[in-house]
Amino acid sequence: MELHWNRKTVLSTIDHAVLKPDATDSDVREQCMLAAKYGVASVCVKPCHVSLAHELLRDSNVKVSTVIGFPHGSTTTRCKVFEAREAIENGAVELDMVINIGKLISEDYDYVKNEIESIVQTAHEKNVEVKVIIEAALLSEEQKKMACKLSREAGADYLKTSTGFNGRGAALEDIRIMREAGGPDIKLKASGGIKTFEQAVEFIKAGCVRLGTSSTVAIAEEGTKDTP
Amino acid sequence: MELHWNRKTVLSTIDHAVLKPDATDSDVREQCMLAAKYGVASVCVKPCHVSLAHELLRDSNVKVSTVIGFPHGSTTTRCKVFEAREAIENGAVELDMVINIGKLISEDYDYVKNEIESIVQTAHEKNVEVKVIIEAALLSEEQKKMACKLSREAGADYLKTSTGFNGRGAALEDIRIMREAGGPDIKLKASGGIKTFEQAVEFIKAGCVRLGTSSTVAIAEEGTKDTP
Repeated sequence: MELHWNRKTVLSTIDHAVLKPDATDSDVREQCMLAAKYGVASVCVKPCHVSLAHELLRDSNVKVSTVIGFPHGSTTTRCKVFEAREAIENGAVELDMVINIGKLISEDYDYVKNEIESIVQTAHEKNVEVKVIIEAALLSEEQKKMACKLSREAGADYLKTSTGFNGRGAALEDIRIMREAGGPDIKLKASGGIKTFEQAVEFIKAGCVRLGTSSTVAIAEEGTKDTP
Repeated sequence: MELHWNRKTVLSTIDHAVLKPDATDSDVREQCMLAAKYGVASVCVKPCHVSLAHELLRDSNVKVSTVIGFPHGSTTTRCKVFEAREAIENGAVELDMVINIGKLISEDYDYVKNEIESIVQTAHEKNVEVKVIIEAALLSEEQKKMACKLSREAGADYLKTSTGFNGRGAALEDIRIMREAGGPDIKLKASGGIKTFEQAVEFIKAGCVRLGTSSTVAIAEEGTKDTP
């Protein structure tokens, strides 16, 4: 029973990722069906697939989320805002934006904070939540802390570890830093490299309320294999 | 003398890439200076760095190029057009756009062609050239041919092999396919994994008039080591 309960809880934290550059329309159809079957929090699709996912999931409890400035975070602020606005129009209710990694490392903190604020404002007007991907793999500990601080000050709803496309994925140590530097109220999402039920549970225990993964089926199956 | 001539020719084909997600403002300053010193064709910077590069290279013969929908090609057509327009306003005179890889593999050829046409139209109005990155590493031979055909029909100026961020970079076999399927008039650019003078010369001999690389210094130094 404990495992069974965990399984549902774990699945309800998942943003099921369909983000690979070569993911097709039929991949989106298949993965949206899976997402609805398993009761995940959202399906996270590429911007070009938001409309399709929205249509497919209209009658389910699964949300549609998407990514902004993904996966390098290197587009302009104006472009990210445009992208966010269009994604919302197309049916996305959560946005995972990539921080401008180069500007953060350049210590242009006003730029970084202003950019996050611009997206947050665009999103919150429409009751859409914003997750800021800090891309921990590319940052020093000090840079991670600064990314979290700026995101918190800019009103982000979530901090997220990784895109899954630039080096290593989530690490528990990142979650500790994010909680400490992001403060007690910001929500945390781990993503990148989460492939097993055990890993998923570890990140939830560490304080994550969302997990980004494309290994939802494997996680669901592991979560049930010991239940009657 | 032969090598010396080659060196200058080789350098004049280079789009010097400063595209890593963690590339900073000072990286752009440094690399623009290098680019001017070595006489490359362009510096290819991230969209957020176009204004800076434009300012730095205003008095040089080095062009500013940038990337659109980079590196996954998964943003919407409207977003890519917005991004292209802003990049041009900020000073980019060449745009390296990533084809929508997922839509191509989905065989939604109208989508793919229409998207390229939209960017080409936006760019050509301002005398800006468009390179279409087909991301050969993720495509079958048939898909590569279709990508080239659609790009040619849509009026693209160049076909480009790779982003350098999704699997392997350029291969000579890709150049052969691009020439065959793209027709005799389209220009070819190889990019990804070009690190030596010898590789650069091979791609030029195969028909490429542009090379994307961040190894410009190494290529320049190799190209001179046997000259008096």
